[in-house]
Amino acid sequence: MIKQKKELPVAVVGAGMIRFGELFDQSYDDMIVGAYRECLKSVDKGVDEEDIEAAWFGTCLPGATVRREAMGGAGLAEPLRFYPRPVTRIENYCGSGSDSCRNAAFAVAAGIYDLVLVLGAEKMRDIPSRDSIIAQVGRGFHNWWAPRGSSSPQRFGSYALAHMKQFGTKKEHFAMIAVKNHHHASLNPKSYFQNDVTLEQVMNAPIVSWPLGIFDACPTTDGAAAVLLTRPDKAHEYTDRPMYFWGTGVATDPFYVSNKKSYVGWPATEEAARQAYEMAGIGPEDIDLAELHDCFTSTELITYEDIGFCKKGEGPKWLEEGHPMLDGDKPCNTSGGLKGKGHPIGATGVAQIVELWQQLRDEAGERQIKNAHIGLTHNLGGIGSICVINVFGDEPR
Amino acid sequence: MIKQKKELPVAVVGAGMIRFGELFDQSYDDMIVGAYRECLKSVDKGVDEEDIEAAWFGTCLPGATVRREAMGGAGLAEPLRFYPRPVTRIENYCGSGSDSCRNAAFAVAAGIYDLVLVLGAEKMRDIPSRDSIIAQVGRGFHNWWAPRGSSSPQRFGSYALAHMKQFGTKKEHFAMIAVKNHHHASLNPKSYFQNDVTLEQVMNAPIVSWPLGIFDACPTTDGAAAVLLTRPDKAHEYTDRPMYFWGTGVATDPFYVSNKKSYVGWPATEEAARQAYEMAGIGPEDIDLAELHDCFTSTELITYEDIGFCKKGEGPKWLEEGHPMLDGDKPCNTSGGLKGKGHPIGATGVAQIVELWQQLRDEAGERQIKNAHIGLTHNLGGIGSICVINVFGDEPR
Repeated sequence: MIKQKKELPVAVVGAGMIRFGELFDQSYDDMIVGAYRECLKSVDKGVDEEDIEAAWFGTCLPGATVRREAMGGAGLAEPLRFYPRPVTRIENYCGSGSDSCRNAAFAVAAGIYDLVLVLGAEKMRDIPSRDSIIAQVGRGFHNWWAPRGSSSPQRFGSYALAHMKQFGTKKEHFAMIAVKNHHHASLNPKSYFQNDVTLEQVMNAPIVSWPLGIFDACPTTDGAAAVLLTRPDKAHEYTDRPMYFWGTGVATDPFYVSNKKSYVGWPATEEAARQAYEMAGIGPEDIDLAELHDCFTSTELITYEDIGFCKKGEGPKWLEEGHPMLDGDKPCNTSGGLKGKGHPIGATGVAQIVELWQQLRDEAGERQIKNAHIGLTHNLGGIGSICVINVFGDEPR
Repeated sequence: MIKQKKELPVAVVGAGMIRFGELFDQSYDDMIVGAYRECLKSVDKGVDEEDIEAAWFGTCLPGATVRREAMGGAGLAEPLRFYPRPVTRIENYCGSGSDSCRNAAFAVAAGIYDLVLVLGAEKMRDIPSRDSIIAQVGRGFHNWWAPRGSSSPQRFGSYALAHMKQFGTKKEHFAMIAVKNHHHASLNPKSYFQNDVTLEQVMNAPIVSWPLGIFDACPTTDGAAAVLLTRPDKAHEYTDRPMYFWGTGVATDPFYVSNKKSYVGWPATEEAARQAYEMAGIGPEDIDLAELHDCFTSTELITYEDIGFCKKGEGPKWLEEGHPMLDGDKPCNTSGGLKGKGHPIGATGVAQIVELWQQLRDEAGERQIKNAHIGLTHNLGGIGSICVINVFGDEPR
């Protein structure tokens, strides 16, 4: 039914982000300007800002977070003084940033523009976190067929529980992912958290929604990230080491938990991966590293399976064997992930691309992995109702 | 600086909408299903729903209007059971629907998908209109540099006043546009308002913000509209009379009224028109009919000038000469416009395309104009901070 084309002639020539965190000293606009400047700085041969022809802007909850629900193109055009150029704002839950990148890539692939900006941002800490932001927005989903009292930790926790029940997965497995991602974050100067945690700390942490404790949940974070896309034949005007956009996939699945057919996996991830692999002409075995949507540690574990890194139910074993570790053969969330780096919703999918940019160019410092040639980013939004997957390589396909 | 390509190989093969209005008997989801079904029905040779590969969904204020700020792809995937296909939600103020169409067209032009859906919707009447919706959202813009107490009628009214002062435009001119668009609406079974109004009624109506009275303002409306886009070489599988996407343009301009350089025109309209005309390879003289963003009657008058139908300051004369009337040489808002048909924000830009679809195919019934070959749609959002213009023809470019 989805017979998408197998070519996406688009290259990344710049990628940058501000350090994520509790940025009380920066406004929403400040963060956007910061990420934009970091992105410009990353362009090896420099770029004339005036050559950027259009922009896509990913932000998810500006109504709840900065009291400006309708952002429109002005959300980016205003802080960057980007006028009169076109700006499109995209909201696709936790895939807002990565779907912005997909739409920008389509415009470049269609030959409409030569050089475009993708920027994602979310300001989540200026509103008190108790009974706010995600909780406020969550209430919006509480209609007659969605149970009252449900929250993100509860909804994702139910998947963790189902996986434990069906496959014998232990709470320790989820904890291992927290330890891994905190360690990666400690090596990433742009991460919110900079500290290691121990398995014991994670296991003994206060429970948010069983089996998920406070260290199994990603933090509420401020942040912004940006990338520049161009045509492959123009990429070398900006850098001798571009990153190439190999494939993209987006899939939808029922939103309401009561309509899900299974609680041990996300069909949207499977379908988005299928589309992205097909467009990229590869399989999961070809991926060298992946930035996965670890909104909760259990989500990362289940995603190993949905994305084809191992078979359904074998995520715990695959984790125990060390594959997703920094020195494993398929490192996951080398940036620290949402868990360690933070999860400013609209920025997340773009920041994942920033991590691939640094890894594929051997610029990731202490957390640099070996043989990084093909990377994947994954975002799961709206409790699995949407998934966005993008694949990049260090050479043209 | 914006050197966009001059080709957009995309065709419209279906377009439909529900009747706009105060739809207390229809939920947000009901409207979406209704518009989708009307769109499917409009496809001459029929369409297998399963052949639709992806969708773009335009909606502007679901947080304020239906208490679901984050809609994501689920906003469309859920009511249409569209899973597992990709859906992107776009918010670009009053250009949300038309920019959704632009982004969908880019994906088709890039050859990624063969057949895609664009759907716009907004549910505005289920929340009491006093101190709500636009007013609620408007408060979000009230920070230190935006004056408190400003509202859409006040902001657009200031442009009307400036135009009166600088060019001698009369309140009667704005009233003439209300009379015209109400008349067109009376001939459109899908319009909210079905009644004519007299110049006297409009002139004597209660003032909202001088010089704009209640009949100068578009209503707060519920509604949804949808179109189907495909590649031109596949269009004849669906209809012998496709409509072709000739050009698109989006431009941004300062958001805050205090940063505007002039109050007698919108630079974003001029720039978006320039882009769209260039891509379409035409000029304003080639346009046979236009759906313009008459959120207020004065906006339509000023847009005649910004879009190049006449020179700056000559809008009143051009109107008096009858050009934009139903029997004029360049009919504007034959659908009734936002003023007569209604303005459910996310649906508006898509519904404008529905009107062009009917006019270019000689299916507009009592309001059918002669010689409709090239049509233009225009949306101005965020008090002129964004403009989206799309151009269509009844033959390939």
